[in-house]
Amino acid sequence: MIETQEKSPKFPLRLEKVGIINLKTLIKIERYNKEFRHIPTINIFMDLDKLKKGVHMSRLIESITEALGEEVTQEHYSLEQLGKHILEKLKEKHHFQKAVIEFESELPVYEKTPASLKDTIEIHEITVKVLNDGKTWVKTLKVSVLGNTACPHALSVNKGKTHIQRAVGILEITTDFTNEIALEDMVDAVERSFSSKVYTLLKTEDESYIVQKMFENPLFVEDVCRNILALASKQFGNCEIHAKCISHESIHRHNVYAEGSVKT
Amino acid sequence: MIETQEKSPKFPLRLEKVGIINLKTLIKIERYNKEFRHIPTINIFMDLDKLKKGVHMSRLIESITEALGEEVTQEHYSLEQLGKHILEKLKEKHHFQKAVIEFESELPVYEKTPASLKDTIEIHEITVKVLNDGKTWVKTLKVSVLGNTACPHALSVNKGKTHIQRAVGILEITTDFTNEIALEDMVDAVERSFSSKVYTLLKTEDESYIVQKMFENPLFVEDVCRNILALASKQFGNCEIHAKCISHESIHRHNVYAEGSVKT
Amino acid sequence: MIETQEKSPKFPLRLEKVGIINLKTLIKIERYNKEFRHIPTINIFMDLDKLKKGVHMSRLIESITEALGEEVTQEHYSLEQLGKHILEKLKEKHHFQKAVIEFESELPVYEKTPASLKDTIEIHEITVKVLNDGKTWVKTLKVSVLGNTACPHALSVNKGKTHIQRAVGILEITTDFTNEIALEDMVDAVERSFSSKVYTLLKTEDESYIVQKMFENPLFVEDVCRNILALASKQFGNCEIHAKCISHESIHRHNVYAEGSVKT
Amino acid sequence: MIETQEKSPKFPLRLEKVGIINLKTLIKIERYNKEFRHIPTINIFMDLDKLKKGVHMSRLIESITEALGEEVTQEHYSLEQLGKHILEKLKEKHHFQKAVIEFESELPVYEKTPASLKDTIEIHEITVKVLNDGKTWVKTLKVSVLGNTACPHALSVNKGKTHIQRAVGILEITTDFTNEIALEDMVDAVERSFSSKVYTLLKTEDESYIVQKMFENPLFVEDVCRNILALASKQFGNCEIHAKCISHESIHRHNVYAEGSVKT
Repeated sequence: MIETQEKSPKFPLRLEKVGIINLKTLIKIERYNKEFRHIPTINIFMDLDKLKKGVHMSRLIESITEALGEEVTQEHYSLEQLGKHILEKLKEKHHFQKAVIEFESELPVYEKTPASLKDTIEIHEITVKVLNDGKTWVKTLKVSVLGNTACPHALSVNKGKTHIQRAVGILEITTDFTNEIALEDMVDAVERSFSSKVYTLLKTEDESYIVQKMFENPLFVEDVCRNILALASKQFGNCEIHAKCISHESIHRHNVYAEGSVKT
Repeated sequence: MIETQEKSPKFPLRLEKVGIINLKTLIKIERYNKEFRHIPTINIFMDLDKLKKGVHMSRLIESITEALGEEVTQEHYSLEQLGKHILEKLKEKHHFQKAVIEFESELPVYEKTPASLKDTIEIHEITVKVLNDGKTWVKTLKVSVLGNTACPHALSVNKGKTHIQRAVGILEITTDFTNEIALEDMVDAVERSFSSKVYTLLKTEDESYIVQKMFENPLFVEDVCRNILALASKQFGNCEIHAKCISHESIHRHNVYAEGSVKT
Repeated sequence: MIETQEKSPKFPLRLEKVGIINLKTLIKIERYNKEFRHIPTINIFMDLDKLKKGVHMSRLIESITEALGEEVTQEHYSLEQLGKHILEKLKEKHHFQKAVIEFESELPVYEKTPASLKDTIEIHEITVKVLNDGKTWVKTLKVSVLGNTACPHALSVNKGKTHIQRAVGILEITTDFTNEIALEDMVDAVERSFSSKVYTLLKTEDESYIVQKMFENPLFVEDVCRNILALASKQFGNCEIHAKCISHESIHRHNVYAEGSVKT
Repeated sequence: MIETQEKSPKFPLRLEKVGIINLKTLIKIERYNKEFRHIPTINIFMDLDKLKKGVHMSRLIESITEALGEEVTQEHYSLEQLGKHILEKLKEKHHFQKAVIEFESELPVYEKTPASLKDTIEIHEITVKVLNDGKTWVKTLKVSVLGNTACPHALSVNKGKTHIQRAVGILEITTDFTNEIALEDMVDAVERSFSSKVYTLLKTEDESYIVQKMFENPLFVEDVCRNILALASKQFGNCEIHAKCISHESIHRHNVYAEGSVKT
């Protein structure tokens, strides 16, 4: 069997990340005694030694399929635990100094509407990343959550009127693999940082509740970003915390943006 | 030379549209004595007879490059005129019963801010489509324009407070090729249909002007859609007029939508 | 209670589609004794009478949440059955002449690799649409599937060499609600229309199998489109069948395209 | 006049990047005695002191519109020169320690087809970024270019047959502002790194030329990535060079990926 990947490359340069992106598969996770199913987009990478021509790409996929195939005997309690399991499989199959796996998926959260207290399910975008450098295991968790901003400057100069818009809040936490952080708590920290939380289902009384809330709590993107940082740093210890807010301005074609970070 | 395209297909089925999508090139247009340059996405299609295996794809591209190469001797005064020229070239090179070309591009419009009267350039998404069925030439012009909606229902139940959001208005007009319609007039019809127009540059006095306007002119997506239909049908005769409005709700994760059409 | 939606509109124009787009929620379906979970993008619309200012948008969402809430007592055996159930709920809450619901989601299909016969899960994009006009129920099922094309013209002029590329095949079937059609069978019809099927996991022997297959079965996008039409029309009776193929040319920046339709 | 932005924030945290994203405007550049017009997407950011509540967003936009308004008296010879001019304007209007501006646009390049030597225009995606930290000016130039890969492993085990696919090569160079680097030279370095360059227009003889070239020059994404690094490091001194290659596999649903970097 010819092993083209093992040959010498034309230019002996080490590559930082070689692998597969946009792989989709079906994943079952047993979190908090509840079954979650994901059809994530998976990205998986290794570094490549300067003297090897290529990575054996099929071994990356085998590591995924074998880890998933062991579900019966070994359940996974989180996406990060599954990611670690896949990288451990990979280590048995392929040499690397550093490897990373990322899952981009969606998280359903059960909620009550704010005034009518009806049941509603809200879906949030999440990313879970696991990194191994041979010794240490590090994870990065990210949630991207919709909310809104009501402009405090326009409110102060327009006697109780202002412009309001949809905004996106993003919270990303990098921490030791063993530091337990629930994605749901991260979503909650972002939602509490907006002028108001938003909901899929709203009866008229809920809509009024939110309208009042937005006018009582006017915020710049800068404020939302700092709120996320402050709330997250209070709640999550031993972390690198990164936050962004993007506001889809209702009075402009462009978006406004704020980004910051803290360590806890 | 083997002409695989001329062979018989395995299944003798006529195909409605065969061609090229996502072709990008540089185009110069001399509209109203002003030079416009576009790097449009071009889609170009013909029908294919049930007895031919394939279309000669390179002839579609040659029709484009030759029409553009004649710029020096023949200037184009609009994207639709260029489109017609390309389809005429195509007819010399390739048999078809029906052919279509589409340009998706952007239109810069020079404006004044509403209160401070400063210069600002606003960019709108446009699509220009030309269709030939052997005899008649028909065109479809489309503009996609940002603006906003302030909810009239929330305003009426919340004593002068409401939710406001960015919205998109889309106006599409299909008409005889010779019916002259300016894309700028279509943009204007959509902008006048929103709670308020939006701008790239806004000084505090402009922002106040827009905030006041939104509260004085609360509209559902249904209202915006009907406004577009009413304004366009008043202005553009002998047309099929199609309108949409999509509102990026500030109190929800989802968007609300209205769509309608009229003939003039 | 003020009912702004019930007021007269400024311009009394009937609207064809008013509703909600991009709503995400969690759905469980019991198909063929297997549980499927979807987090679809849902679009839901009604027509709007020319004398009513607006649609009561929250009733659209309540129809969805109530239909999903009845899962315990009433299981759903397909996305189309759930869609019908939601539109029936909607009819109790809101007057309409015509209503539509669409689910855009993903379908996991269990497969064996072609030579090594290993297990692999393949994910396909699907859309399921249900339409009611008061009397009849019609559905549209769509699958979007990846495969490849090897160019027969280049192969014939280059002595066994050719260009090969990833392609997308799309099959859309509109039929009476009661006409049972499995999305998996539609996926299969598209996959058999390409130069070769593609897989997530491939061992070297599988890769060789596919490489051979592509060279033995060179196809234009026109061929793939006709193959889909021919295979689907043989398999699915009493249907309007629509097919597209888009090839991401490896020798061009643009894509090539074919589209056609047949009735059975 | 109330200056809400000057107030104290609730949480006194410094923010790294505050500003505007997705702003579109029309820009004229006089490069190499040729007029280029861009409708870029512009992102512009500053850091924000921990004691200020917000950035005066309209000053960011005024810096852009004023710099563009001075075109008559001061021409711009590159996007980076315009970016520097905008940040210099901004410094007069607003305090910052660090500011960045990015232009995402498209670059037309005039080419000859490889065998028939016909004229063709090829369009490439580019990003130009300028960063000022008060003292130094640094720029980052990025090009994203289409080409293809023919798999060397499949070729060696399948007696002259292989799989081929479209690929994207990305070259990003960070260097001192005064280090002159032409985007066209960067595009060229990426194109020479693929199995073959691709073209919009191809006659049969050109197509054959490319098909031959791909089979003579089979490459993994790892090879393409190293080729870009090697060619760019030979040509561009005093730079941080970053390269990526993404191959849209014709035998898989997923993409394969390689990334690396060198300093010169």
